[in-house]
Amino acid sequence: MTDAAHDPAWTAVRHDDELGSLDIAALELRYRSGELDPMEVVDAVYDRIEGYGGEGVWISLVGRAEARRAAAALGSRPDGRPLWGIPFAVKDNLDVAGMPTTAACPAFARTPGATATAVRRLLDAGALLIGKTNLDQFATGLNGTRSPYGIPSTPFDARMISGGSSSGSGVAVSAGLVSFALGTDTAGSGRVPAAFTNTVGVKPSRGLVSSAGMLPACRSLDCVSVVALTVDDGTRVLDVMAGHDPSDAWSRALPPTARRAVPADPAGLTFAVPAERDLGLSEDYRPEWDRALARLEAAGATLVTVDLTPFLRTGAMLYGGPWLAERYGALEDFLGEHPDDVHPAVRAAVSAGPDVTGVDVFRGTHLLRVLRRQAESTLADVSALLVPTSPYTTTIEALLADPVAANAALGRFTTFANLLDLAGVAVPVGLTAAGLPFGVTVLADAGRDAALAAIAASVEQLAAVPLGATGHPRPAAPAAPVPPA
Amino acid sequence: MTDAAHDPAWTAVRHDDELGSLDIAALELRYRSGELDPMEVVDAVYDRIEGYGGEGVWISLVGRAEARRAAAALGSRPDGRPLWGIPFAVKDNLDVAGMPTTAACPAFARTPGATATAVRRLLDAGALLIGKTNLDQFATGLNGTRSPYGIPSTPFDARMISGGSSSGSGVAVSAGLVSFALGTDTAGSGRVPAAFTNTVGVKPSRGLVSSAGMLPACRSLDCVSVVALTVDDGTRVLDVMAGHDPSDAWSRALPPTARRAVPADPAGLTFAVPAERDLGLSEDYRPEWDRALARLEAAGATLVTVDLTPFLRTGAMLYGGPWLAERYGALEDFLGEHPDDVHPAVRAAVSAGPDVTGVDVFRGTHLLRVLRRQAESTLADVSALLVPTSPYTTTIEALLADPVAANAALGRFTTFANLLDLAGVAVPVGLTAAGLPFGVTVLADAGRDAALAAIAASVEQLAAVPLGATGHPRPAAPAAPVPPA
Repeated sequence: MTDAAHDPAWTAVRHDDELGSLDIAALELRYRSGELDPMEVVDAVYDRIEGYGGEGVWISLVGRAEARRAAAALGSRPDGRPLWGIPFAVKDNLDVAGMPTTAACPAFARTPGATATAVRRLLDAGALLIGKTNLDQFATGLNGTRSPYGIPSTPFDARMISGGSSSGSGVAVSAGLVSFALGTDTAGSGRVPAAFTNTVGVKPSRGLVSSAGMLPACRSLDCVSVVALTVDDGTRVLDVMAGHDPSDAWSRALPPTARRAVPADPAGLTFAVPAERDLGLSEDYRPEWDRALARLEAAGATLVTVDLTPFLRTGAMLYGGPWLAERYGALEDFLGEHPDDVHPAVRAAVSAGPDVTGVDVFRGTHLLRVLRRQAESTLADVSALLVPTSPYTTTIEALLADPVAANAALGRFTTFANLLDLAGVAVPVGLTAAGLPFGVTVLADAGRDAALAAIAASVEQLAAVPLGATGHPRPAAPAAPVPPA
Repeated sequence: MTDAAHDPAWTAVRHDDELGSLDIAALELRYRSGELDPMEVVDAVYDRIEGYGGEGVWISLVGRAEARRAAAALGSRPDGRPLWGIPFAVKDNLDVAGMPTTAACPAFARTPGATATAVRRLLDAGALLIGKTNLDQFATGLNGTRSPYGIPSTPFDARMISGGSSSGSGVAVSAGLVSFALGTDTAGSGRVPAAFTNTVGVKPSRGLVSSAGMLPACRSLDCVSVVALTVDDGTRVLDVMAGHDPSDAWSRALPPTARRAVPADPAGLTFAVPAERDLGLSEDYRPEWDRALARLEAAGATLVTVDLTPFLRTGAMLYGGPWLAERYGALEDFLGEHPDDVHPAVRAAVSAGPDVTGVDVFRGTHLLRVLRRQAESTLADVSALLVPTSPYTTTIEALLADPVAANAALGRFTTFANLLDLAGVAVPVGLTAAGLPFGVTVLADAGRDAALAAIAASVEQLAAVPLGATGHPRPAAPAAPVPPA
């Protein structure tokens, strides 16, 4: 990989090695040709991690020696497993046997004996675990500043937030430290960091990926998510993890996922897009949104303006309504015993939880039914809803100065998704005048994950921005479904 | 119809007319032969209502003149509509345009401008509305004593409760005053009255029948139900009402219902039955339950004893846990303004509602998820769960002396159904030594309504007890599906 492959405008992170892009397709090609083996990848990855200047990405790392042993165990040639030799990270609210799960709260840390089912499936598919990433404490936040393990910033600008709560996962992937990382996504925690780090965030249908071994944040809405460099990579990872888990009460039997993300023909797609008054984009984001829409229209896609009110009303119930009680309930015991160990912004975010009455919750669920029906009707005749992933981004300093309201505003276009039982894929599509990534999200009814992969890949390929913060060119998407190995 | 057709042991109600049994199959036969026309049926029905001695069955009647006009409008020969000329009643928590909806609370009464969708579909199918029936106030109760419009008793014994909350509907059908009646069923309100009046109670899958125009009791769980004389009649009525209603946020797209109830071969059926320790049947009921099981086994059915714990734990959450807040929420405003107009037992039943916290509700929904998974696993390999409909019955006097606990005990085998998203059909199968009806209920996962009709018909035909309280013999079930007219 030579410097010529880096787009300078997009290159915020440059590694002093020969490894090049860690996107799965690239690694796989080099593994198959024998040009590279997993041991070399592991060594380069640990060197990159040591060399990376940004703070607060990791909470714990698998020891290099242990990772080398895992790489050695894979042998030197691909064995047909779908993630053979692919380095990945896991958000630190997902259990890995023998490593502490902190949820970014040291006093809460405990070391589980079992590995989360989703992680187990990745390991079984040949992926190499590198470490556990930082997060907004208890996965409560969309900004990435709520952690005693340091505040990661986007690799594009050290003053700007990374997004959260899967902050370390977004940065680790964007900065080329791992090929992909697991996040979790309740209110947008897997999508907002993707928007701010120029990565892809796959938030599957609720219950598609087993939640066994995931620390609950807001139990009825939590999903394991994927941060990846490309839609195809995210699709491949999801396909490995997806599947009904009868031992998990939140698991659902849903239609099969796609093995690969073959882009849909844009001319066959119809997107619902928010009416002007519902957008509220920052000045920096606005032209990028318009460009994204123009690009889709130029490619033949149909855009239909819709009233986003039911979606926005739904979103408001998550942090400002009945569901606060669910989030509070998950923390209640720990908060009672260790009030001073909980991050002040997290404490503030859930402080109204005890005031929510049972009647409030039922009224909220009743209202949600009505709003869900309206949303279904809005989405009935379109391929997907297309929204900016976040309406704005901000500096770490500004976020810390207004930690609750500035956080909530980040979730304008993400918070409704799980309440409305939608799946979504956040896709990077541009760089603002300030040199910051801008992303959009495509959303569709739960169970349409396979269709969404194709739609997201279409949006991705039209923009074709470089990968993460490394400036590597985005690979072409697979042209046709790949038959099972 | 001659006296010979009455089984004297079962004949609690005898009408001094030539009309005979009002089961739909019998009326249809006589309509088709020209032996009878709807006007004669209407006249006889009103005479029967005037002649019936029991109190508290009706809250309001369609005027005889108006009913005669509706009968006249049908003409004298069947026109192919599935319920042409069939007289029916509606529980008074379902709206009929121009008639007051009281919910058994005079101060609450209001006269709606629109007819409930379910009722509308019956009228459109040619059915003749006769009146609106009494209920436990606000559909809160399983016993039938909680109404200022009088306390109906089972036609079999004036001292004994009718069951509730669809008390008037059960009695009206049992006593041969109408062919079928709509009830509603949240905790068992459509099944318990069927058990105590020797009728069939069809509680469909949640969301199968539109709830538009039904007064909410516990909104997320309420269903429109059918009280009928036979499983086939109940199936036909359900088939007319069923269907997705996009305007009702609680409506669901579910598999099609059966047009008729063709009995399943008992030799092909496997029933889950409660373990001995979970039964808790009264002395009077116990031998009838044993007989019902022996009859099924003799016919070749397989019985599998299961642990009912997840079902019973679920049921306990309805009146004694988080869902109380939903029921309380529906009454909160009215209770605040008219505390003295609410029946003391209803007030007592919901009194703990305001104490339920939002956290309680979410914890309850989380526990329910786990219990639902256990129940699914229990039911995975059987045709249906078979339970007594109620574990005991009691006198009106005893119920009034202990109005909350004695009520809750009636719902042991009904309360869990809607929380676990099951459909059920209550079937009469015996008469106790005390001369009171005994019934069982078959239950299966939501969406299996068509299969349940066939299973319930099989259970019904093996017992083949006479119809309601009139002693008329039970007709043979249809032998094969009837093609659409």
